[in-house]
Amino acid sequence: EGAEPGQVLVVHVEKITPHNIGWTGYRGNTGAMPGWLGDSNVGPTSKVVEIRDGRIIWNDKFSIPIKPMLGCVGVAPARDRWVNSWAGVWGGNFDIQEVTDGAQVHIPIQVPGANLHIGDMHALQGDGEICGGGGIETGGIARLRVELKDKPADMTWPRIENDEYIMTTAQARPAEDAFRTALSEMLLWLEGEYNFARKDAFMFLAQVLEARITQFVNPTFSYVAKVKKEYLEWTR
Amino acid sequence: EGAEPGQVLVVHVEKITPHNIGWTGYRGNTGAMPGWLGDSNVGPTSKVVEIRDGRIIWNDKFSIPIKPMLGCVGVAPARDRWVNSWAGVWGGNFDIQEVTDGAQVHIPIQVPGANLHIGDMHALQGDGEICGGGGIETGGIARLRVELKDKPADMTWPRIENDEYIMTTAQARPAEDAFRTALSEMLLWLEGEYNFARKDAFMFLAQVLEARITQFVNPTFSYVAKVKKEYLEWTR
Repeated sequence: EGAEPGQVLVVHVEKITPHNIGWTGYRGNTGAMPGWLGDSNVGPTSKVVEIRDGRIIWNDKFSIPIKPMLGCVGVAPARDRWVNSWAGVWGGNFDIQEVTDGAQVHIPIQVPGANLHIGDMHALQGDGEICGGGGIETGGIARLRVELKDKPADMTWPRIENDEYIMTTAQARPAEDAFRTALSEMLLWLEGEYNFARKDAFMFLAQVLEARITQFVNPTFSYVAKVKKEYLEWTR
Repeated sequence: EGAEPGQVLVVHVEKITPHNIGWTGYRGNTGAMPGWLGDSNVGPTSKVVEIRDGRIIWNDKFSIPIKPMLGCVGVAPARDRWVNSWAGVWGGNFDIQEVTDGAQVHIPIQVPGANLHIGDMHALQGDGEICGGGGIETGGIARLRVELKDKPADMTWPRIENDEYIMTTAQARPAEDAFRTALSEMLLWLEGEYNFARKDAFMFLAQVLEARITQFVNPTFSYVAKVKKEYLEWTR
């Protein structure tokens, strides 16, 4: 399609519609789990659930509203071949709940042609994704639209936008390094597009940043850092 | 007051009323900061703000709603003397935004008499508390009520409750260890008081857990892990 490095692929997530069945499973051990609780006392376990009328039927007494998301949205990486569980500057398996209806995922293109791939639909996912195999893993239909834009010079990692927030993402282990990277991406964004002096961006983010780790089970951990758009209107 | 180890001190935060002036400052470097952005380009910087009608007057074009909180709520630790910036099983300087009006902070008592201390009022704080010296640091009036309860056997770290959530907290570095501890505290809570088998608690939390780090600037990092009370009503 003429996509080239130096551009970003903007993936507009228009509508995710999960199928009517989902699955979650715990392998008996994940990186999110406290080893001192003893995984051998539990062992692998799993659960199949019906998804009906926008709710996950957990049991006959309890259902949970779905929040459908795509765990994996990425382009082809430039230099290396990774297993599918990784994420990086090319996006990938970052398992961020904000990748849902109405989100725009901005991914720096790494190779000519971009080679968008998506997958890992979850009907719902808790922070940490502690069971490894999910989230409520499901199939379904995702309606997307893509466009190409020039990449801002100070952008390295995928960004996400929706009506309410601008968001940066990063991957690292330990988790604090993922935070530092997502934070530096946000500082550079505020400098580059919202007319902040860096020192003012530091003090501003100290008050208004919302940030959390979305998964602790992949080879690197995912941080998402968010600023409300209404807090930025005055800047330009 | 007859407070003894084996009990918890429940601190009901009834109303926090900040004074009309606040301060935030960045020392030029904190653990939350990405070193590769270069702290020497910014250096120490600070800002004094007026707090008026429930808003922080950031400048003549922008104000931010306050969310007042107590950064520090703790009892005396049992064995060691720590500087005031630490937090631990005794509570302390954990900088969790949820410690606000309507919250109950449950702290395991470590020494006879408990010796409650509070402080570090913030009119607002972003996740990560990236500037070190704040948050919008302020003084003010905090109306509290305390009571004593027996400590649940499986509780080690402070818990927080409000009308909407039950929450566990933990302190560690790297951040993933704080998550694992807060998660294990939540698993044990669900087992102990909400009739979950452990394997079911794992799969349940994989879907509904909300969790984040609230500060990256103290000697250990603070994790808060939350479950909506409405998701627990069916269990008992």
